[in-house]
Amino acid sequence: MVLINGISGDKVSVSDRGLQYGDGVFETIAYRGGSPEFLEQHITRLLNGCRILHINFGQIDHLRAELEGVFKTLDSDSTVIKITITRGVGGRGYFSDNSAIPTRIIATYSYPIYPEGYQVDGVTLRFCEQTLSVNRRLAGIKHMNRLEQVLARNEWSDPAIAEGIMSNEEGSIIECTMSNIFVVADNVLTTPLVTQAGIAGVMRGQIIQLATRSGISVEERAISRQQLAQADEVFICNSIIGVWPVSGITTTIYSIGLITQFIQKSLSELKK
Amino acid sequence: MVLINGISGDKVSVSDRGLQYGDGVFETIAYRGGSPEFLEQHITRLLNGCRILHINFGQIDHLRAELEGVFKTLDSDSTVIKITITRGVGGRGYFSDNSAIPTRIIATYSYPIYPEGYQVDGVTLRFCEQTLSVNRRLAGIKHMNRLEQVLARNEWSDPAIAEGIMSNEEGSIIECTMSNIFVVADNVLTTPLVTQAGIAGVMRGQIIQLATRSGISVEERAISRQQLAQADEVFICNSIIGVWPVSGITTTIYSIGLITQFIQKSLSELKK
Repeated sequence: MVLINGISGDKVSVSDRGLQYGDGVFETIAYRGGSPEFLEQHITRLLNGCRILHINFGQIDHLRAELEGVFKTLDSDSTVIKITITRGVGGRGYFSDNSAIPTRIIATYSYPIYPEGYQVDGVTLRFCEQTLSVNRRLAGIKHMNRLEQVLARNEWSDPAIAEGIMSNEEGSIIECTMSNIFVVADNVLTTPLVTQAGIAGVMRGQIIQLATRSGISVEERAISRQQLAQADEVFICNSIIGVWPVSGITTTIYSIGLITQFIQKSLSELKK
Repeated sequence: MVLINGISGDKVSVSDRGLQYGDGVFETIAYRGGSPEFLEQHITRLLNGCRILHINFGQIDHLRAELEGVFKTLDSDSTVIKITITRGVGGRGYFSDNSAIPTRIIATYSYPIYPEGYQVDGVTLRFCEQTLSVNRRLAGIKHMNRLEQVLARNEWSDPAIAEGIMSNEEGSIIECTMSNIFVVADNVLTTPLVTQAGIAGVMRGQIIQLATRSGISVEERAISRQQLAQADEVFICNSIIGVWPVSGITTTIYSIGLITQFIQKSLSELKK
Protein backbone atom coordinates (compact mmCIF):
# COMPACT_ATOMS: atom_id res chain seq x y z
CA MET A 1 0.00 0.00 0.00
CA VAL A 2 1.26 3.45 -0.87
CA LEU A 3 -0.29 6.78 0.10
CA ILE A 4 1.03 9.94 -1.53
CA ASN A 5 -0.19 13.06 0.25
CA GLY A 6 -3.01 10.96 1.62
CA ILE A 7 -4.10 9.58 -1.74
CA SER A 8 -3.61 6.00 -2.83
CA GLY A 9 -1.09 5.80 -5.66
CA ASP A 10 2.40 4.61 -6.40
CA LYS A 11 3.96 7.33 -8.53
CA VAL A 12 5.53 10.72 -7.89
CA SER A 13 6.29 13.58 -10.27
CA VAL A 14 9.65 13.45 -12.03
CA SER A 15 9.98 17.07 -10.88
CA ASP A 16 9.82 16.07 -7.22
CA ARG A 17 12.99 17.25 -5.53
CA GLY A 18 13.19 13.91 -3.75
CA LEU A 19 13.97 12.31 -7.12
CA GLN A 20 15.94 15.22 -8.57
CA TYR A 21 18.36 15.71 -5.67
CA GLY A 22 17.52 13.23 -2.89
CA ASP A 23 16.05 16.30 -1.19
CA GLY A 24 14.18 14.74 1.72
CA VAL A 25 14.17 12.40 4.70
CA PHE A 26 12.71 9.00 5.51
CA GLU A 27 11.94 6.62 8.37
CA THR A 28 11.60 2.85 8.39
CA ILE A 29 9.32 1.64 11.17
CA ALA A 30 8.60 -1.86 12.42
CA TYR A 31 4.91 -2.66 12.85
CA ARG A 32 4.68 -5.78 14.97
CA GLY A 33 2.16 -7.35 17.30
CA GLY A 34 -0.50 -4.90 16.23
CA SER A 35 1.36 -1.65 16.82
CA PRO A 36 4.19 0.46 15.44
CA GLU A 37 7.41 0.32 17.42
CA PHE A 38 8.94 3.57 18.69
CA LEU A 39 6.62 5.62 16.46
CA GLU A 40 7.13 8.85 18.40
CA GLN A 41 10.90 8.51 18.26
CA HIS A 42 10.71 8.01 14.49
CA ILE A 43 8.44 11.03 14.04
CA THR A 44 10.72 13.15 16.22
CA ARG A 45 13.73 12.24 14.08
CA LEU A 46 11.74 12.82 10.87
CA LEU A 47 10.75 16.32 12.00
CA ASN A 48 14.28 17.03 13.16
CA GLY A 49 15.56 16.06 9.72
CA CYS A 50 13.04 18.40 8.07
CA ARG A 51 14.15 21.20 10.39
CA ILE A 52 17.83 20.68 9.55
CA LEU A 53 17.08 20.62 5.80
CA HIS A 54 14.71 23.62 6.15
CA ILE A 55 11.82 21.60 4.73
CA ASN A 56 8.65 23.36 5.87
CA PHE A 57 6.71 20.25 6.75
CA GLY A 58 3.46 21.51 8.27
CA GLN A 59 1.36 18.43 7.48
CA ILE A 60 2.25 16.43 10.59
CA ASP A 61 -1.43 16.12 11.62
CA HIS A 62 -2.28 14.76 8.17
CA LEU A 63 0.62 12.34 8.40
CA ARG A 64 -0.48 11.07 11.80
CA ALA A 65 -4.08 10.60 10.65
CA GLU A 66 -2.93 8.77 7.53
CA LEU A 67 -0.67 6.50 9.58
CA GLU A 68 -3.58 5.63 11.89
CA GLY A 69 -5.65 4.76 8.84
CA VAL A 70 -2.86 2.57 7.48
CA PHE A 71 -2.41 0.77 10.80
CA LYS A 72 -6.10 -0.20 10.76
CA THR A 73 -5.83 -1.82 7.34
CA LEU A 74 -2.79 -3.97 8.14
CA ASP A 75 -3.74 -7.61 8.23
CA SER A 76 -0.23 -8.93 8.65
CA ASP A 77 1.24 -9.02 12.12
CA SER A 78 4.61 -7.86 10.85
CA THR A 79 4.95 -5.04 8.38
CA VAL A 80 7.57 -2.45 7.52
CA ILE A 81 6.23 1.08 7.24
CA LYS A 82 8.34 3.59 5.38
CA ILE A 83 7.59 7.30 5.67
CA THR A 84 9.23 9.66 3.18
CA ILE A 85 9.04 13.45 3.25
CA THR A 86 10.53 15.30 0.27
CA ARG A 87 10.77 19.04 -0.26
CA GLY A 88 8.16 18.56 -3.01
CA VAL A 89 7.97 19.99 -6.52
CA GLY A 90 9.31 23.45 -7.14
CA GLY A 91 12.19 25.83 -7.16
CA ARG A 92 14.69 26.60 -9.88
CA GLY A 93 17.53 24.12 -9.87
CA TYR A 94 19.00 23.68 -6.42
CA PHE A 95 17.27 26.83 -5.18
CA SER A 96 13.90 26.41 -3.54
CA ASP A 97 11.85 29.49 -2.75
CA ASN A 98 9.98 27.66 0.03
CA SER A 99 6.75 27.75 -1.97
CA ALA A 100 7.07 24.01 -2.52
CA ILE A 101 4.62 21.86 -0.58
CA PRO A 102 6.44 18.82 0.83
CA THR A 103 5.48 15.43 -0.57
CA ARG A 104 4.63 12.84 2.09
CA ILE A 105 4.71 9.17 1.20
CA ILE A 106 3.62 6.27 3.39
CA ALA A 107 4.46 2.85 2.00
CA THR A 108 4.06 -0.58 3.56
CA TYR A 109 6.26 -3.55 2.80
CA SER A 110 6.26 -7.16 3.90
CA TYR A 111 8.68 -7.82 6.72
CA PRO A 112 12.05 -8.99 5.44
CA ILE A 113 12.80 -12.63 6.17
CA TYR A 114 16.18 -13.16 7.79
CA PRO A 115 17.58 -16.51 8.90
CA GLU A 116 16.34 -17.32 12.40
CA GLY A 117 19.88 -17.99 13.53
CA TYR A 118 20.81 -14.32 13.15
CA GLN A 119 19.16 -13.44 16.50
CA VAL A 120 20.64 -16.37 18.38
CA ASP A 121 23.88 -17.41 16.73
CA GLY A 122 24.82 -14.01 15.47
CA VAL A 123 25.95 -12.72 12.10
CA THR A 124 29.17 -12.28 10.21
CA LEU A 125 30.27 -8.81 9.11
CA ARG A 126 32.84 -7.54 6.66
CA PHE A 127 34.63 -4.23 6.17
CA CYS A 128 33.45 -2.07 3.27
CA GLU A 129 35.84 -0.25 0.96
CA GLN A 130 33.35 2.58 0.46
CA THR A 131 33.90 5.25 3.10
CA LEU A 132 31.39 7.56 4.76
CA SER A 133 32.07 11.21 4.05
CA VAL A 134 32.07 13.87 6.74
CA ASN A 135 29.22 16.37 6.77
CA ARG A 136 28.49 17.81 10.20
CA ARG A 137 25.16 19.27 9.11
CA LEU A 138 23.79 16.12 7.50
CA ALA A 139 25.24 13.67 10.04
CA GLY A 140 22.69 11.93 12.23
CA ILE A 141 19.58 12.55 10.12
CA LYS A 142 18.09 9.94 7.80
CA HIS A 143 18.19 11.93 4.57
CA MET A 144 17.72 10.50 1.10
CA ASN A 145 21.31 10.89 -0.17
CA ARG A 146 22.24 7.27 0.31
CA LEU A 147 24.65 6.47 -2.52
CA GLU A 148 27.45 5.68 -0.09
CA GLN A 149 25.30 3.01 1.57
CA VAL A 150 24.18 1.66 -1.82
CA LEU A 151 27.77 1.35 -3.05
CA ALA A 152 28.94 -0.19 0.23
CA ARG A 153 26.10 -2.73 0.35
CA ASN A 154 26.73 -3.79 -3.23
CA GLU A 155 30.37 -4.62 -2.59
CA TRP A 156 29.33 -8.17 -1.63
CA SER A 157 26.57 -10.62 -2.49
CA ASP A 158 27.70 -13.56 -0.33
CA PRO A 159 24.59 -14.39 1.79
CA ALA A 160 26.88 -15.64 4.56
CA ILE A 161 27.80 -12.03 5.27
CA ALA A 162 24.90 -10.15 6.84
CA GLU A 163 26.29 -6.65 7.04
CA GLY A 164 29.23 -4.43 6.13
CA ILE A 165 31.10 -2.05 8.40
CA MET A 166 31.62 1.50 7.13
CA SER A 167 34.39 3.82 8.28
CA ASN A 168 35.27 7.43 7.63
CA GLU A 169 38.31 8.44 5.55
CA GLU A 170 40.53 8.20 8.64
CA GLY A 171 39.52 4.57 9.17
CA SER A 172 37.41 5.25 12.24
CA ILE A 173 34.37 2.97 12.36
CA ILE A 174 31.00 4.78 12.09
CA GLU A 175 28.22 2.25 11.47
CA CYS A 176 27.13 -0.54 9.12
CA THR A 177 25.32 -0.03 5.82
CA MET A 178 21.83 -0.31 7.35
CA SER A 179 22.53 -0.58 11.08
CA ASN A 180 24.43 0.96 13.98
CA ILE A 181 27.20 -0.91 15.74
CA PHE A 182 27.99 -1.37 19.44
CA VAL A 183 31.05 -2.97 21.03
CA VAL A 184 31.57 -4.19 24.58
CA ALA A 185 35.06 -4.01 26.06
CA ASP A 186 35.86 -4.14 29.80
CA ASN A 187 32.11 -4.06 30.50
CA VAL A 188 31.72 -0.70 28.77
CA LEU A 189 29.25 -0.46 25.89
CA THR A 190 30.59 1.81 23.16
CA THR A 191 29.07 3.05 19.92
CA PRO A 192 30.62 5.51 17.46
CA LEU A 193 29.61 9.17 17.55
CA VAL A 194 27.38 10.12 14.61
CA THR A 195 28.04 13.86 14.72
CA GLN A 196 30.25 13.95 11.61
CA ALA A 197 28.90 11.00 9.63
CA GLY A 198 26.38 8.22 10.08
CA ILE A 199 22.76 7.98 11.17
CA ALA A 200 21.50 8.39 14.73
CA GLY A 201 19.33 5.27 14.61
CA VAL A 202 16.15 5.14 16.67
CA MET A 203 17.13 1.67 17.94
CA ARG A 204 20.62 2.98 18.72
CA GLY A 205 19.03 5.70 20.85
CA GLN A 206 16.79 3.19 22.64
CA ILE A 207 19.75 0.95 23.42
CA ILE A 208 21.82 3.82 24.82
CA GLN A 209 18.91 4.79 27.09
CA LEU A 210 18.18 1.22 28.11
CA ALA A 211 21.81 0.42 28.92
CA THR A 212 22.25 3.64 30.87
CA ARG A 213 19.12 2.96 32.93
CA SER A 214 20.39 -0.56 33.58
CA GLY A 215 23.65 0.69 35.04
CA ILE A 216 25.79 -0.30 32.06
CA SER A 217 28.51 2.22 31.26
CA VAL A 218 27.84 3.66 27.81
CA GLU A 219 30.23 5.74 25.75
CA GLU A 220 29.79 7.42 22.39
CA ARG A 221 33.23 7.80 20.87
CA ALA A 222 35.42 6.81 17.96
CA ILE A 223 36.12 3.10 17.54
CA SER A 224 39.20 1.97 15.65
CA ARG A 225 39.54 -1.32 13.79
CA GLN A 226 41.94 -2.48 16.47
CA GLN A 227 39.47 -1.71 19.26
CA LEU A 228 36.80 -3.57 17.33
CA ALA A 229 39.08 -6.57 16.88
CA GLN A 230 39.86 -6.64 20.61
CA ALA A 231 36.25 -6.19 21.81
CA ASP A 232 34.58 -8.76 24.06
CA GLU A 233 31.18 -8.50 22.36
CA VAL A 234 29.85 -6.79 19.26
CA PHE A 235 26.29 -6.32 18.08
CA ILE A 236 24.45 -4.35 15.40
CA CYS A 237 20.93 -2.92 15.49
CA ASN A 238 18.22 -1.13 13.61
CA SER A 239 14.46 -0.71 13.91
CA ILE A 240 13.67 -3.70 11.73
CA ILE A 241 16.24 -6.30 12.76
CA GLY A 242 16.32 -5.32 16.44
CA VAL A 243 19.67 -6.57 17.75
CA TRP A 244 21.86 -9.06 15.95
CA PRO A 245 24.86 -10.35 17.88
CA VAL A 246 28.00 -10.34 15.78
CA SER A 247 29.74 -13.69 15.79
CA GLY A 248 32.62 -12.65 13.62
CA ILE A 249 34.16 -10.20 11.22
CA THR A 250 35.77 -12.02 8.36
CA THR A 251 38.26 -14.01 10.46
CA THR A 252 37.71 -12.42 13.87
CA ILE A 253 35.34 -14.55 15.98
CA TYR A 254 33.35 -13.27 19.00
CA SER A 255 31.38 -15.21 21.53
CA ILE A 256 27.83 -13.95 22.08
CA GLY A 257 28.26 -12.38 25.47
CA LEU A 258 26.09 -11.54 28.42
CA ILE A 259 25.59 -7.86 27.69
CA THR A 260 24.40 -8.51 24.15
CA GLN A 261 21.95 -11.11 25.45
CA PHE A 262 20.78 -8.78 28.21
CA ILE A 263 20.13 -5.96 25.73
CA GLN A 264 18.20 -8.28 23.42
CA LYS A 265 16.08 -9.56 26.31
CA SER A 266 15.45 -6.15 27.87
CA LEU A 267 14.53 -4.63 24.53
CA SER A 268 11.97 -7.31 23.79
CA GLU A 269 10.42 -6.64 27.21
CA LEU A 270 10.48 -2.89 26.55
CA LYS A 271 8.37 -3.30 23.43
CA LYS A 272 5.60 -5.19 25.23
CA MET B 1 7.97 17.29 -22.34
CA VAL B 2 8.98 14.25 -20.35
CA LEU B 3 9.80 10.79 -21.67
CA ILE B 4 10.18 7.93 -19.19
CA ASN B 5 11.74 4.86 -20.80
CA GLY B 6 10.62 6.27 -24.12
CA ILE B 7 7.01 6.80 -23.12
CA SER B 8 5.43 10.19 -22.55
CA GLY B 9 4.62 10.69 -18.90
CA ASP B 10 5.67 12.70 -15.91
CA LYS B 11 5.67 10.26 -13.00
CA VAL B 12 7.99 7.57 -11.70
CA SER B 13 7.38 4.74 -9.24
CA VAL B 14 7.88 5.57 -5.56
CA SER B 15 9.97 2.39 -5.49
CA ASP B 16 12.44 3.81 -8.00
CA ARG B 17 15.88 3.82 -6.42
CA GLY B 18 16.41 7.30 -7.82
CA LEU B 19 13.79 8.55 -5.38
CA GLN B 20 14.59 6.15 -2.56
CA TYR B 21 18.34 6.76 -2.38
CA GLY B 22 19.32 9.28 -5.07
CA ASP B 23 20.68 6.19 -6.84
CA GLY B 24 21.44 7.55 -10.30
CA VAL B 25 23.11 10.18 -12.46
CA PHE B 26 21.95 13.11 -14.59
CA GLU B 27 23.06 15.55 -17.28
CA THR B 28 21.82 19.03 -18.09
CA ILE B 29 22.36 19.92 -21.74
CA ALA B 30 21.94 23.22 -23.57
CA TYR B 31 19.98 22.99 -26.82
CA ARG B 32 20.64 26.19 -28.76
CA GLY B 33 20.60 27.29 -32.36
CA GLY B 34 18.94 24.08 -33.43
CA SER B 35 21.35 21.57 -31.86
CA PRO B 36 22.47 20.17 -28.53
CA GLU B 37 25.76 21.50 -27.24
CA PHE B 38 28.53 19.02 -26.36
CA LEU B 39 26.08 16.10 -26.53
CA GLU B 40 28.79 13.46 -26.87
CA GLN B 41 30.70 14.81 -23.88
CA HIS B 42 27.52 14.71 -21.79
CA ILE B 43 26.74 11.15 -22.85
CA THR B 44 30.32 10.10 -22.11
CA ARG B 45 30.10 11.51 -18.60
CA LEU B 46 26.66 9.94 -18.08
CA LEU B 47 27.97 6.50 -19.06
CA ASN B 48 31.05 7.00 -16.91
CA GLY B 49 28.82 7.80 -13.95
CA CYS B 50 26.78 4.64 -14.58
CA ARG B 51 29.99 2.63 -14.74
CA ILE B 52 31.27 4.03 -11.43
CA LEU B 53 27.92 3.36 -9.73
CA HIS B 54 27.71 -0.10 -11.36
CA ILE B 55 24.41 0.79 -13.02
CA ASN B 56 24.01 -1.62 -15.93
CA PHE B 57 22.73 0.90 -18.43
CA GLY B 58 22.42 -0.99 -21.69
CA GLN B 59 19.77 1.21 -23.28
CA ILE B 60 22.11 3.79 -24.79
CA ASP B 61 20.74 3.20 -28.32
CA HIS B 62 17.21 3.76 -27.05
CA LEU B 63 18.33 6.91 -25.27
CA ARG B 64 20.00 8.28 -28.41
CA ALA B 65 16.94 7.54 -30.55
CA GLU B 66 14.64 9.18 -28.01
CA LEU B 67 16.89 12.25 -27.85
CA GLU B 68 16.80 12.56 -31.65
CA GLY B 69 13.02 12.40 -31.49
CA VAL B 70 12.90 15.07 -28.80
CA PHE B 71 15.24 17.39 -30.75
CA LYS B 72 12.85 17.26 -33.73
CA THR B 73 9.89 18.39 -31.66
CA LEU B 74 11.62 21.39 -30.10
CA ASP B 75 10.12 24.60 -31.41
CA SER B 76 12.06 26.91 -29.13
CA ASP B 77 15.57 27.87 -30.15
CA SER B 78 16.79 27.55 -26.57
CA THR B 79 15.85 24.62 -24.38
CA VAL B 80 17.39 22.80 -21.46
CA ILE B 81 17.41 19.03 -21.82
CA LYS B 82 17.86 16.99 -18.68
CA ILE B 83 18.71 13.30 -18.90
CA THR B 84 18.38 11.17 -15.77
CA ILE B 85 19.38 7.52 -15.42
CA THR B 86 18.45 5.77 -12.17
CA ARG B 87 19.21 2.22 -11.11
CA GLY B 88 15.48 1.57 -11.52
CA VAL B 89 13.03 -0.34 -9.34
CA GLY B 90 14.29 -3.32 -7.41
CA GLY B 91 16.58 -4.77 -4.84
CA ARG B 92 16.11 -5.19 -1.13
CA GLY B 93 17.02 -2.03 0.74
CA TYR B 94 20.39 -0.70 -0.30
CA PHE B 95 21.26 -3.99 -1.97
CA SER B 96 20.53 -4.34 -5.66
CA ASP B 97 20.86 -7.72 -7.32
CA ASN B 98 21.43 -6.11 -10.72
CA SER B 99 18.09 -7.42 -12.00
CA ALA B 100 16.77 -3.86 -11.92
CA ILE B 101 16.30 -2.23 -15.32
CA PRO B 102 17.56 1.35 -15.20
CA THR B 103 14.98 4.11 -15.56
CA ARG B 104 15.82 6.70 -18.22
CA ILE B 105 14.15 10.08 -18.14
CA ILE B 106 14.42 12.83 -20.73
CA ALA B 107 12.84 16.13 -19.71
CA THR B 108 12.86 19.48 -21.48
CA TYR B 109 12.68 22.84 -19.73
CA SER B 110 12.53 26.39 -20.91
CA TYR B 111 15.89 28.11 -20.86
CA PRO B 112 16.45 30.03 -17.61
CA ILE B 113 16.44 33.79 -17.99
CA TYR B 114 19.44 35.49 -16.45
CA PRO B 115 20.18 39.23 -16.48
CA GLU B 116 22.01 40.14 -19.71
CA GLY B 117 24.67 41.92 -17.71
CA TYR B 118 25.93 38.65 -16.25
CA GLN B 119 27.83 37.80 -19.44
CA VAL B 120 29.34 41.26 -19.84
CA ASP B 121 29.60 42.95 -16.48
CA GLY B 122 30.05 39.78 -14.50
CA VAL B 123 28.41 38.42 -11.38
CA THR B 124 28.85 38.65 -7.65
CA LEU B 125 29.59 35.51 -5.65
CA ARG B 126 29.46 34.67 -1.97
CA PHE B 127 31.04 31.97 0.19
CA CYS B 128 28.73 29.18 1.34
CA GLU B 129 28.80 27.80 4.87
CA GLN B 130 27.82 24.34 3.63
CA THR B 131 30.93 22.33 2.82
CA LEU B 132 31.47 19.66 0.19
CA SER B 133 32.32 16.28 1.67
CA VAL B 134 35.16 14.12 0.39
CA ASN B 135 34.30 10.96 -1.49
CA ARG B 136 36.96 9.86 -3.96
CA ARG B 137 34.66 7.40 -5.68
CA LEU B 138 31.74 9.77 -6.19
CA ALA B 139 33.83 12.85 -6.97
CA GLY B 140 33.60 14.09 -10.54
CA ILE B 141 30.39 12.33 -11.57
CA LYS B 142 27.02 14.07 -11.68
CA HIS B 143 25.13 11.75 -9.33
CA MET B 144 21.75 12.49 -7.76
CA ASN B 145 22.90 12.95 -4.14
CA ARG B 146 22.77 16.73 -4.22
CA LEU B 147 21.71 17.77 -0.72
CA GLU B 148 24.96 19.65 -0.17
CA GLN B 149 24.26 21.81 -3.23
CA VAL B 150 20.62 22.30 -2.21
CA LEU B 151 21.61 23.43 1.28
CA ALA B 152 24.37 25.69 -0.04
CA ARG B 153 22.15 27.32 -2.68
CA ASN B 154 19.43 28.00 -0.15
CA GLU B 155 21.73 29.92 2.16
CA TRP B 156 20.88 33.11 0.29
CA SER B 157 17.97 34.54 -1.67
CA ASP B 158 19.42 37.96 -2.53
CA PRO B 159 19.12 38.16 -6.34
CA ALA B 160 22.20 40.38 -6.44
CA ILE B 161 24.30 37.32 -5.66
CA ALA B 162 24.45 34.94 -8.63
CA GLU B 163 26.36 32.04 -7.19
CA GLY B 164 27.92 30.61 -4.02
CA ILE B 165 31.43 29.22 -3.63
CA MET B 166 31.73 25.81 -1.95
CA SER B 167 34.83 24.55 -0.18
CA ASN B 168 35.84 21.27 1.43
CA GLU B 169 36.21 20.89 5.20
CA GLU B 170 39.80 22.18 5.01
CA GLY B 171 38.62 25.41 3.38
CA SER B 172 40.01 24.59 -0.04
CA ILE B 173 37.76 25.92 -2.82
CA ILE B 174 36.16 23.21 -5.01
CA GLU B 175 33.39 24.75 -7.14
CA CYS B 176 30.19 26.77 -6.96
CA THR B 177 26.74 25.31 -6.26
CA MET B 178 25.88 24.80 -9.95
CA SER B 179 29.10 25.76 -11.73
CA ASN B 180 32.85 25.24 -11.82
CA ILE B 181 35.26 28.06 -11.02
CA PHE B 182 38.47 29.24 -12.72
CA VAL B 183 40.98 31.82 -11.56
CA VAL B 184 43.70 33.62 -13.48
CA ALA B 185 46.89 34.64 -11.68
CA ASP B 186 50.21 35.48 -13.34
CA ASN B 187 48.68 34.44 -16.69
CA VAL B 188 48.03 30.90 -15.43
CA LEU B 189 44.46 29.59 -15.56
CA THR B 190 43.73 27.44 -12.53
CA THR B 191 40.69 25.40 -11.55
CA PRO B 192 40.33 23.15 -8.49
CA LEU B 193 40.85 19.41 -8.80
CA VAL B 194 37.59 17.47 -8.62
CA THR B 195 39.10 14.13 -7.64
CA GLN B 196 37.97 14.23 -3.99
CA ALA B 197 34.81 16.37 -4.24
CA GLY B 198 32.96 18.36 -6.88
CA ILE B 199 31.71 17.71 -10.39
CA ALA B 200 33.88 17.47 -13.49
CA GLY B 201 31.69 19.80 -15.54
CA VAL B 202 31.46 19.32 -19.30
CA MET B 203 32.01 23.06 -19.80
CA ARG B 204 34.97 22.92 -17.41
CA GLY B 205 36.50 20.18 -19.56
CA GLN B 206 35.91 22.18 -22.74
CA ILE B 207 37.54 25.27 -21.23
CA ILE B 208 40.62 23.33 -20.10
CA GLN B 209 41.01 21.90 -23.64
CA LEU B 210 40.38 25.25 -25.29
CA ALA B 211 42.85 27.10 -23.10
CA THR B 212 45.52 24.44 -23.52
CA ARG B 213 45.12 24.51 -27.31
CA SER B 214 45.38 28.30 -27.20
CA GLY B 215 48.71 28.19 -25.42
CA ILE B 216 47.35 29.32 -22.04
CA SER B 217 48.96 27.57 -19.08
CA VAL B 218 46.31 25.56 -17.27
CA GLU B 219 46.63 23.97 -13.85
CA GLU B 220 44.24 21.79 -11.89
CA ARG B 221 45.09 22.20 -8.22
CA ALA B 222 43.77 23.35 -4.88
CA ILE B 223 42.78 27.02 -4.61
CA SER B 224 42.74 28.70 -1.22
CA ARG B 225 40.57 31.65 -0.27
CA GLN B 226 43.68 33.81 -0.24
CA GLN B 227 44.66 32.76 -3.76
CA LEU B 228 41.14 33.52 -4.91
CA ALA B 229 41.26 36.95 -3.27
CA GLN B 230 44.57 37.73 -4.98
CA ALA B 231 43.61 36.44 -8.43
CA ASP B 232 43.71 38.75 -11.47
CA GLU B 233 40.54 37.30 -13.01
CA VAL B 234 37.84 34.88 -11.92
CA PHE B 235 35.04 33.25 -13.89
CA ILE B 236 32.48 30.49 -13.41
CA CYS B 237 30.98 28.15 -16.00
CA ASN B 238 28.50 25.42 -16.71
CA SER B 239 26.73 24.00 -19.76
CA ILE B 240 23.74 26.31 -19.46
CA ILE B 241 25.26 29.65 -18.46
CA GLY B 242 28.43 29.28 -20.51
CA VAL B 243 31.00 31.56 -18.87
CA TRP B 244 30.16 34.33 -16.42
CA PRO B 245 32.98 36.65 -15.43
CA VAL B 246 33.12 37.26 -11.69
CA SER B 247 33.18 40.94 -10.79
CA GLY B 248 33.32 40.47 -7.06
CA ILE B 249 32.87 38.30 -4.02
CA THR B 250 30.74 39.73 -1.24
CA THR B 251 32.61 40.24 1.94
CA THR B 252 31.54 41.83 5.14
CA ILE B 253 33.05 45.29 5.50
CA TYR B 254 34.35 46.37 8.88
CA SER B 255 35.90 49.66 9.80
CA ILE B 256 39.15 49.34 11.66
CA GLY B 257 37.97 50.46 15.05
CA LEU B 258 39.51 51.99 18.12
CA ILE B 259 39.80 48.81 20.15
CA THR B 260 41.57 46.95 17.37
CA GLN B 261 43.95 49.86 16.96
CA PHE B 262 44.50 50.02 20.71
CA ILE B 263 45.29 46.29 20.91
CA GLN B 264 47.61 46.53 17.92
CA LYS B 265 49.44 49.48 19.35
CA SER B 266 49.71 48.04 22.84
CA LEU B 267 50.94 44.72 21.54
CA SER B 268 53.63 46.29 19.40
CA GLU B 269 54.82 48.26 22.43
CA LEU B 270 54.76 45.12 24.55
CA LYS B 271 57.13 43.41 22.12
CA LYS B 272 59.75 46.14 22.47
